[in-house]
Amino acid sequence: MDNAPGRHHLFVPGPTNIPEQVIRAMNRNNEDYRAPAIPALTKTLLEDVKKIFKTSTGIPFLFPTTGTGAWESALTNTLSPGDRIVSFLIGQFSLLWIDQQQRLNFNVDVVESDWGQGANLDVLESKLASDRTHTIKAICIVHNETATGVTNNLAKVRKILDDYQHPALLIVDGVSSICALDFRMDEWGVDVAVTGSQKALSLPTGLGIVCAGPKAIEASKSAKSLRVFFDWNDYLKFYKLGTYWPYTPSIQLLYGLREALDLIFEEGLDNVILRHKRLGHATRLAVEAWGLKNCTQKEEWYSDTVTAVLVPPYIDAAEVVRRSWKRYNMSLGLGLNKVAGKVFRIGHLGNLNELQLLGCLAGVEMILNDVGYPVKLGSGVAAASAYFQNNIPMIPSRI
Amino acid sequence: MDNAPGRHHLFVPGPTNIPEQVIRAMNRNNEDYRAPAIPALTKTLLEDVKKIFKTSTGIPFLFPTTGTGAWESALTNTLSPGDRIVSFLIGQFSLLWIDQQQRLNFNVDVVESDWGQGANLDVLESKLASDRTHTIKAICIVHNETATGVTNNLAKVRKILDDYQHPALLIVDGVSSICALDFRMDEWGVDVAVTGSQKALSLPTGLGIVCAGPKAIEASKSAKSLRVFFDWNDYLKFYKLGTYWPYTPSIQLLYGLREALDLIFEEGLDNVILRHKRLGHATRLAVEAWGLKNCTQKEEWYSDTVTAVLVPPYIDAAEVVRRSWKRYNMSLGLGLNKVAGKVFRIGHLGNLNELQLLGCLAGVEMILNDVGYPVKLGSGVAAASAYFQNNIPMIPSRI
Amino acid sequence: MDNAPGRHHLFVPGPTNIPEQVIRAMNRNNEDYRAPAIPALTKTLLEDVKKIFKTSTGIPFLFPTTGTGAWESALTNTLSPGDRIVSFLIGQFSLLWIDQQQRLNFNVDVVESDWGQGANLDVLESKLASDRTHTIKAICIVHNETATGVTNNLAKVRKILDDYQHPALLIVDGVSSICALDFRMDEWGVDVAVTGSQKALSLPTGLGIVCAGPKAIEASKSAKSLRVFFDWNDYLKFYKLGTYWPYTPSIQLLYGLREALDLIFEEGLDNVILRHKRLGHATRLAVEAWGLKNCTQKEEWYSDTVTAVLVPPYIDAAEVVRRSWKRYNMSLGLGLNKVAGKVFRIGHLGNLNELQLLGCLAGVEMILNDVGYPVKLGSGVAAASAYFQNNIPMIPSRI
Amino acid sequence: MDNAPGRHHLFVPGPTNIPEQVIRAMNRNNEDYRAPAIPALTKTLLEDVKKIFKTSTGIPFLFPTTGTGAWESALTNTLSPGDRIVSFLIGQFSLLWIDQQQRLNFNVDVVESDWGQGANLDVLESKLASDRTHTIKAICIVHNETATGVTNNLAKVRKILDDYQHPALLIVDGVSSICALDFRMDEWGVDVAVTGSQKALSLPTGLGIVCAGPKAIEASKSAKSLRVFFDWNDYLKFYKLGTYWPYTPSIQLLYGLREALDLIFEEGLDNVILRHKRLGHATRLAVEAWGLKNCTQKEEWYSDTVTAVLVPPYIDAAEVVRRSWKRYNMSLGLGLNKVAGKVFRIGHLGNLNELQLLGCLAGVEMILNDVGYPVKLGSGVAAASAYFQNNIPMIPSRI
Repeated sequence: MDNAPGRHHLFVPGPTNIPEQVIRAMNRNNEDYRAPAIPALTKTLLEDVKKIFKTSTGIPFLFPTTGTGAWESALTNTLSPGDRIVSFLIGQFSLLWIDQQQRLNFNVDVVESDWGQGANLDVLESKLASDRTHTIKAICIVHNETATGVTNNLAKVRKILDDYQHPALLIVDGVSSICALDFRMDEWGVDVAVTGSQKALSLPTGLGIVCAGPKAIEASKSAKSLRVFFDWNDYLKFYKLGTYWPYTPSIQLLYGLREALDLIFEEGLDNVILRHKRLGHATRLAVEAWGLKNCTQKEEWYSDTVTAVLVPPYIDAAEVVRRSWKRYNMSLGLGLNKVAGKVFRIGHLGNLNELQLLGCLAGVEMILNDVGYPVKLGSGVAAASAYFQNNIPMIPSRI
Repeated sequence: MDNAPGRHHLFVPGPTNIPEQVIRAMNRNNEDYRAPAIPALTKTLLEDVKKIFKTSTGIPFLFPTTGTGAWESALTNTLSPGDRIVSFLIGQFSLLWIDQQQRLNFNVDVVESDWGQGANLDVLESKLASDRTHTIKAICIVHNETATGVTNNLAKVRKILDDYQHPALLIVDGVSSICALDFRMDEWGVDVAVTGSQKALSLPTGLGIVCAGPKAIEASKSAKSLRVFFDWNDYLKFYKLGTYWPYTPSIQLLYGLREALDLIFEEGLDNVILRHKRLGHATRLAVEAWGLKNCTQKEEWYSDTVTAVLVPPYIDAAEVVRRSWKRYNMSLGLGLNKVAGKVFRIGHLGNLNELQLLGCLAGVEMILNDVGYPVKLGSGVAAASAYFQNNIPMIPSRI
Repeated sequence: MDNAPGRHHLFVPGPTNIPEQVIRAMNRNNEDYRAPAIPALTKTLLEDVKKIFKTSTGIPFLFPTTGTGAWESALTNTLSPGDRIVSFLIGQFSLLWIDQQQRLNFNVDVVESDWGQGANLDVLESKLASDRTHTIKAICIVHNETATGVTNNLAKVRKILDDYQHPALLIVDGVSSICALDFRMDEWGVDVAVTGSQKALSLPTGLGIVCAGPKAIEASKSAKSLRVFFDWNDYLKFYKLGTYWPYTPSIQLLYGLREALDLIFEEGLDNVILRHKRLGHATRLAVEAWGLKNCTQKEEWYSDTVTAVLVPPYIDAAEVVRRSWKRYNMSLGLGLNKVAGKVFRIGHLGNLNELQLLGCLAGVEMILNDVGYPVKLGSGVAAASAYFQNNIPMIPSRI
Repeated sequence: MDNAPGRHHLFVPGPTNIPEQVIRAMNRNNEDYRAPAIPALTKTLLEDVKKIFKTSTGIPFLFPTTGTGAWESALTNTLSPGDRIVSFLIGQFSLLWIDQQQRLNFNVDVVESDWGQGANLDVLESKLASDRTHTIKAICIVHNETATGVTNNLAKVRKILDDYQHPALLIVDGVSSICALDFRMDEWGVDVAVTGSQKALSLPTGLGIVCAGPKAIEASKSAKSLRVFFDWNDYLKFYKLGTYWPYTPSIQLLYGLREALDLIFEEGLDNVILRHKRLGHATRLAVEAWGLKNCTQKEEWYSDTVTAVLVPPYIDAAEVVRRSWKRYNMSLGLGLNKVAGKVFRIGHLGNLNELQLLGCLAGVEMILNDVGYPVKLGSGVAAASAYFQNNIPMIPSRI
């Protein structure tokens, strides 16, 4: 329908590029999910998926849903209608989550920041300080705001909670962070974390992965929010039976997840995170070389999975994205809502390597010129390459 | 892991066999769902999916979920907590749906039948007759109960509703019927119908397809049940925008659905239904030839998508299923709950042809002998073949 | 183009059904065949492919060609123009090979049998007996004649050669035998054996596999037949270099062969052969039950990979094949040349299991009735099933 | 085995990158090649493949072989042992072809040039001038020498032949040219042209495509070289029968070729050629920017499918290739034979786009620095991008 020569260059912050190995693993017929093979496979997945959350005490749930569904599962299993939650609005995805929280009848205490800034943790601190009676039941925070390329400091959130010995649950949207950014569920005392298969795991959309720590599991026993499809309890019941699935899973995604995890463990999760650091850093160097600003206002919030690039007012950032698709066979991310037209986004997460990114950056240089922003061709690529050349490791399997 | 020579024989009533053409269509990388290709594709899907519901006025929603999620979406978008609904308990799947209805705080008026019987429509009639004030807000009925192989008469349900001019919504679980059995949304005045991709559509699990008629859409405007992920309104908003997706769909499933629908339309939906009639009838002839009883107690309820076969008391039906898998590389369906151990199930829905079924029936004959029920080998196959030989049409594309 | 519902039933004696695992393994982009991964892979293939020939001293060559090319390679590397060879004409494929031998300017001493009989080894014996000066340079024999379903007795050929201490090379077409029938290169003193990927190995067409024993390798040093593409010497040169390939191989077939061999070794080569014995025996029982004759005239020649079924004179066997395709979505083999119209063939080799075959047999019963030969439906299936039920082993990976 | 993150960057001059659409089309089980679907498919392929040769009078043969086999087919079908042929040695692939010509017992009149130069057509002219008795039976020429990136001027060869009214056959190796470079079989009076599936057609290896003009077909009737597997006559016989295949083709490659041709025609063959012009030109601009020399000595010979880059004497070009694979997940081409260690090669043919090439060029810049040749990072990319930005067309399907 929309054929174009060569590989499509997919640089949106999700869905991401699926490795050929995973595409292969998913290329299969359906199977009976009640036959012995699927529970046996599921058992390994549940065990191994904990590793990408860096948790040993958490319990993972592989919901056949998207990130939005995973959010809902995290909230409805742990909270009751009317519960007060503190939630940070810093971009389109935190906005959507807050919208969900409000529609689910929670009492949402929204802490807003400029889009391009991280969560305002000073406000969190003051709110906790004044919440002696522990009316705040949960802190909801997006680890990495995909719309603006802002990564929040979760270790600090935990520290503040600890400083005030506040029992609120810490519920984290790790959709565009987990398995790409440094994330430590146990160490940071995250009570519920969620991610989606189509992001750093580099799978198709379809798995909303929720990981619940012991405090969250405990909370789920008294949480009064209605839930059926998203209820952890149905899963826990089937976990005990050893059949694992209250309803039909996607056979293909289970085998795909197996392969995706195998590839991640073969590379080494920490090496995966380092690779994203390289990709993120190199992208920012290119943006700087082009004389453009990062939508993210401070270095401490820089995201290693997505970079939102601010264009000058006389340029329509949406035109950058359109032109990319129409002329260069590349998908970039649009600016959303408040930053629509003002930023375009380069997603650099998932199964991606340095030369792929350099091809993208070379493309962005031409596009910027196309749309009227003069860029010295090769300048961004040069800046990124200089960094890469000093930092790319040898491929272990090929030494 | 569980390799065995040759093709696996998949005869559970879902997930079903995926045609090679659909596996091929899904063998692809992710794409940006905000680029023009995906909305363009989605537009054709929404238009064409209505045809399998036989509706021109319904609005379909392709939820990234399972049948269980589709149920929830049908209920929460049209009803308010405390609403009275009449629901028929005739087997495991209607039981699970009723459980969901109760947990979602509806006031469920359960009409129970023996497992193996259809919905008791006399009771429905009397309930409607006495409901002059229209306290009943919805009738929830499973078109085809997958656990017992029972097909309910929806035309009759509609007639009863009409006879009493009762305004209750008619909400139908068509998970194991739509696209395989005769189903007429508009003609039968079905207000909401749901199905799942992994059944008659012969796709992987992952699409919960909900189709809402005008009365249901109207009801959704005042329904007070909480819903976010499953909210139709978010979809309707994006339909208007022409971007279609409030959150990330599975790119692979969209292309797969396109191919699945193309295959169905090429065969002709009515021919697909006729093929299921042939498969169902032939299976029942075989069961009869073996001297076994159909779990379905009357012919009017016989299902053309799944046959639950009763075994004599001295046989464990679960052993039939286990042996099938361990020795014959075939998956049959277990008996569930009340009929566990008493029935095994042969799924004959989706992309399946007559010789595949005959291979299955030949296998079942050996298995029955294996487990101690003496069957004359070839007897069921002969009965089924005799019927097939008189009824299989020539393949149109090959004449 | 020629879509039909359900799985196609492929029962020609090649190309055969590819296991899903192998289709998956081949689902990949090209690679540089000079990069380290391909030689490393090739090394394992050359080592492991010897096992299916049951040779430790043979050297295998994986030619990018078909069986016809493999034949040519076997001949031109070991013989010189004008060399006398004894060759057995027993059906279409031995006929084609003899045609090749003649066109390659060998002096072919053709020993003809009725189609349906095996090679006349008495004639071989008398020829060897009278060949005191060893003018016969090679014996060329088809292990399994695919056109008539006749398996020759290679052990006996070796014995005759040994009895006369005759130094002629023993060159064997194992295209429809190796990896399905009992074949022992070293034990039987086979000097060159050839097979093709699309037969018992259950791969796509494209690999002509030639295995040369020490005597053949020695003969190749003085053989004067021209050859370039099919020259073993180019391969041997590259084997020494460790780069293995004188010209570009099919990357996909190499990975496919790896997976195919892994599956065969997992099942166990001897179990694979036993499975073919079961499939062949059951097919013959069905043919007998139908009151039809096997084209193969004596039991000693019965083939376990293909059965050629004789139809009565008033039936056109080609119509059986056509009807199979047009009505039942099944491919059967046509009768070829002398037996055209007189036989149809059921291929039962490669990655195939018992229930698949039973589906085929049930189909053949209907087809035979369709074309005017009255068969008691279920009779062949019953005969085959009775045998299967006593002989199918449990699937090892599932016990 | 040799996993590395992200897409592998395949920049050898064959096998080339297979488009996802073609991988998908090949993802299938075997089929009976005697059933109606395969001849019907083959008919369209034979008709359409002529278009990529730009011939209306030629007859194409799709041999299950490689380019080496296609060479052999071109020679043995048109020539007799001892025939005098003029052949140009300009690099490794012409050398290998000449080796084949000699081993096939032709009398090869080798016209050698420095590696990096094109065929010496002055010598051709003088040979033809003095060949009044027409002892020269064929001119064999490689259109594009893949080892050195040299494209010969076929129009001029034809002109010289015409000037002397010489009846010698013009036999062309178009392996790395046809479907990527300007090639006109009919207009240039090419009598036989050959190519391979794994080059510009972007398929797996396995089809050696030979196209024979009327004069070549005529010559084949008297040519005395032995051939069986590669004999055109067997094909012509089956073409007449309408069954097309004398022996089993690869079902997967036929469907793959169908899709590959569809993609090429959708893009437009002339646009495909223009795209290769862009890729070739941009690569040469980058090489120049790096201060390196093209192995090709004159602009008239520049190849648009492969660039052989000369490195300074103190650099080992093989190390460039090794490092590319080990650190950057990219495959470049080694220097072969006379130019081993002196050149590395960038293949830029097949299904490839501009951003892919820019990623490659950015990688080469780092590699060159890695191995001790100082390159200004971004310099080659800048030169290439500047050209691309002025020349890349909009993607027609997306405007």
